[in-house]
Amino acid sequence: MIDSYFPHLLIALVALLATAKLLGALAQRIGQPAVVGELIAGVLLGTSLLGLVNPTNPVLHALAELGVLVLLFEIGLHTDLRSLAKVGSQAITVAIVGVALPFGLGYAVSQALGLGTIPSIVAGAALTATSIGISARTLSDLNQLHTPEGQIVLGAAVLDDIVGLVILSVVANLVEGTAVTAGEIAKTSSLAIGFVVAAIVIGGLVMPHVFRLVARIEASGTLGVIGLAFAFLLAWLADEAGSATIIGAFSAGLILHGTPQRQAIEKTTTSIGHFFVPIFFVSVGAAVDIRTLGEPRVLLFGGALIAVGVLGKFVAGFAPFWFNGSKSLIGIAMIPRGEVGLIFAQMGLATGTLTSQLYSAIALMVLATTFITPPLLAMRVRSSAASAESADRPGDGGIDDLVAGTSTYPTQRPQRPQKGRD
Amino acid sequence: MIDSYFPHLLIALVALLATAKLLGALAQRIGQPAVVGELIAGVLLGTSLLGLVNPTNPVLHALAELGVLVLLFEIGLHTDLRSLAKVGSQAITVAIVGVALPFGLGYAVSQALGLGTIPSIVAGAALTATSIGISARTLSDLNQLHTPEGQIVLGAAVLDDIVGLVILSVVANLVEGTAVTAGEIAKTSSLAIGFVVAAIVIGGLVMPHVFRLVARIEASGTLGVIGLAFAFLLAWLADEAGSATIIGAFSAGLILHGTPQRQAIEKTTTSIGHFFVPIFFVSVGAAVDIRTLGEPRVLLFGGALIAVGVLGKFVAGFAPFWFNGSKSLIGIAMIPRGEVGLIFAQMGLATGTLTSQLYSAIALMVLATTFITPPLLAMRVRSSAASAESADRPGDGGIDDLVAGTSTYPTQRPQRPQKGRD
Repeated sequence: MIDSYFPHLLIALVALLATAKLLGALAQRIGQPAVVGELIAGVLLGTSLLGLVNPTNPVLHALAELGVLVLLFEIGLHTDLRSLAKVGSQAITVAIVGVALPFGLGYAVSQALGLGTIPSIVAGAALTATSIGISARTLSDLNQLHTPEGQIVLGAAVLDDIVGLVILSVVANLVEGTAVTAGEIAKTSSLAIGFVVAAIVIGGLVMPHVFRLVARIEASGTLGVIGLAFAFLLAWLADEAGSATIIGAFSAGLILHGTPQRQAIEKTTTSIGHFFVPIFFVSVGAAVDIRTLGEPRVLLFGGALIAVGVLGKFVAGFAPFWFNGSKSLIGIAMIPRGEVGLIFAQMGLATGTLTSQLYSAIALMVLATTFITPPLLAMRVRSSAASAESADRPGDGGIDDLVAGTSTYPTQRPQRPQKGRD
Repeated sequence: MIDSYFPHLLIALVALLATAKLLGALAQRIGQPAVVGELIAGVLLGTSLLGLVNPTNPVLHALAELGVLVLLFEIGLHTDLRSLAKVGSQAITVAIVGVALPFGLGYAVSQALGLGTIPSIVAGAALTATSIGISARTLSDLNQLHTPEGQIVLGAAVLDDIVGLVILSVVANLVEGTAVTAGEIAKTSSLAIGFVVAAIVIGGLVMPHVFRLVARIEASGTLGVIGLAFAFLLAWLADEAGSATIIGAFSAGLILHGTPQRQAIEKTTTSIGHFFVPIFFVSVGAAVDIRTLGEPRVLLFGGALIAVGVLGKFVAGFAPFWFNGSKSLIGIAMIPRGEVGLIFAQMGLATGTLTSQLYSAIALMVLATTFITPPLLAMRVRSSAASAESADRPGDGGIDDLVAGTSTYPTQRPQRPQKGRD
């Protein structure tokens, strides 16, 4: 009977939500972003320790995927395309250098460690894409998402995901032995970029009218739920167009940012996110099999990938040399790798290009870059604040408060002063 | 790869959410409860017509199950145990008569139509439990959940679910040919009832302290998400104790009703419900295979079950003869059958006790009783309102507004006057 898994799902969700919220709160108490607590909650509950949360279970996996879409939709809702465009040249520079450098360095160390050409390409490719989810959530936990640095990171992370997906399709052909033509690369690239442009242009023209009609439905929560449905629609379209679902959800948020219904949409989706988003971060943590990480070869190769992965993205932060803010903050925030890196690793494993040791080494790199970023970024922000440079700029609120910020129950505590929406 | 279903899930959710909200709004515009629109959305999208929503898919099924738990938790949060206890004797009377009469009548007509003893018992048993989800949601759509009549229906529906589950375990033994002893029946009954009593007593002592601690976590949405985790925990415990998950979720709401954190919990869970609850109602509609409903034998047997099913519950509404309000309103609101009826039918089909025709007949009964109740109840309420009896009592707000009521975006329209929480 299809019901037999359901009680187990319930207890997994109970453990997941309670542990994520508890460790998230503890992380904040010791000055770390809440997302660190959620990731650690995942490691504790995951397959290799308590075994309560199995991220490969289809239902939990789907909930986690919905979670990252809700998160990217929320981030898009809070992103003003104009302020993103204002830092466009910087973001493009960070993205290009942040793809090329880690790819080149990753390929070089893999060759140096004795890997063949194609495995070296796969390993290099796995280093290219920053995890938008982890980066944006960490910046938002630290109230930095709406700073120029935060906007550059967001733009660059979206762009390198698009580039990463183009590389993925090229590498997939290479691995399968199919010839790779320049025409194909151009086609994949233009599809992926064209999707975002088309979505924003067409959506920007059509959706304000649609949502003016939706706003006439009186039932509460309708705008938020229809907004979320729109995000899922663009996620699906993005997938069909050969791009990533998260790019579609982010574009949906960008499109609805300027509508008068934004606040109503936000109100409902933020609450829905409180449920879904921790499922994503806990699943990321739960996918870690801490038992495979002890083998010498895994540690050696993983360590090399971590070194070049961190270095490559950190240096990329300094690429827009004309930018006047904190380049090291950008460099640190670009470090975490996530889903796209793991997709490369899984593809490599499935096709036999990577051994299970190389797979573990890439997983170790994803893990390490994800876990070191939040504390490093928190340190960087604190030292900036100490030198009175950036930390408490007014108008930082928005997603920073909404995703993981202050209490919103007026009876509990007074609101933070910067609570006002941008 | 486990991802292959995900794009399909996305487009199913888009179709489901958009159609549910649209048809829900249309239903309201023609004076029907929104839930009618959601059920019809399900029929349209379901397996027998458009095929976009397949309710037996594990992920959608799990989302729908979570949806009914969120709904019951919300209803519990809005239910004052004391006001439920005030109508306790009436609710118990409605429950007892509303179980005995449909069971007896269902058994009798099945025998009259030539069924054997055990199939007749299964058919009768499928008529016993009112669907709390449909009843409560319809009452709330019509602003009637907090009237004495609404409270009696809610209490009776919870009780007859408990009785229905006891009957289910007895019938399951009968069907499998196991001897049924009085001791076993007593054990099953006391487990099911004992669970609710124990949950409310222990939970009522412990949870206020737990939630006072949870309230100290500043991150917004924490109280709501932990509240939901508590509902899932009790749902799981209820299942373990041999009761139903929905009883557990409802009890969790009852327990948290009296805590000072209730409003904060409500705020988040209501928004989460806006997403999950329609998935449940659309799935109920989508399970309808309209192709099997045309066969003469199905129509004959189904028609007989509908007749006795409607009659039995309607008469039960008049059983508390000393009650001073609208007994016909109670009788109508008790009519819808749902999950428990379908579980009986599925069990009968799986064990070979029921033919697929009898199965379709029971499904037809569940369907018909679910679909006729909202318009009948809307008519009844309007005629009461016309005779200035009940419709617009002050203080009706609460779940009525929250589950499917007015807009809550202050910029859109003025609030309804009765918006204040009870």
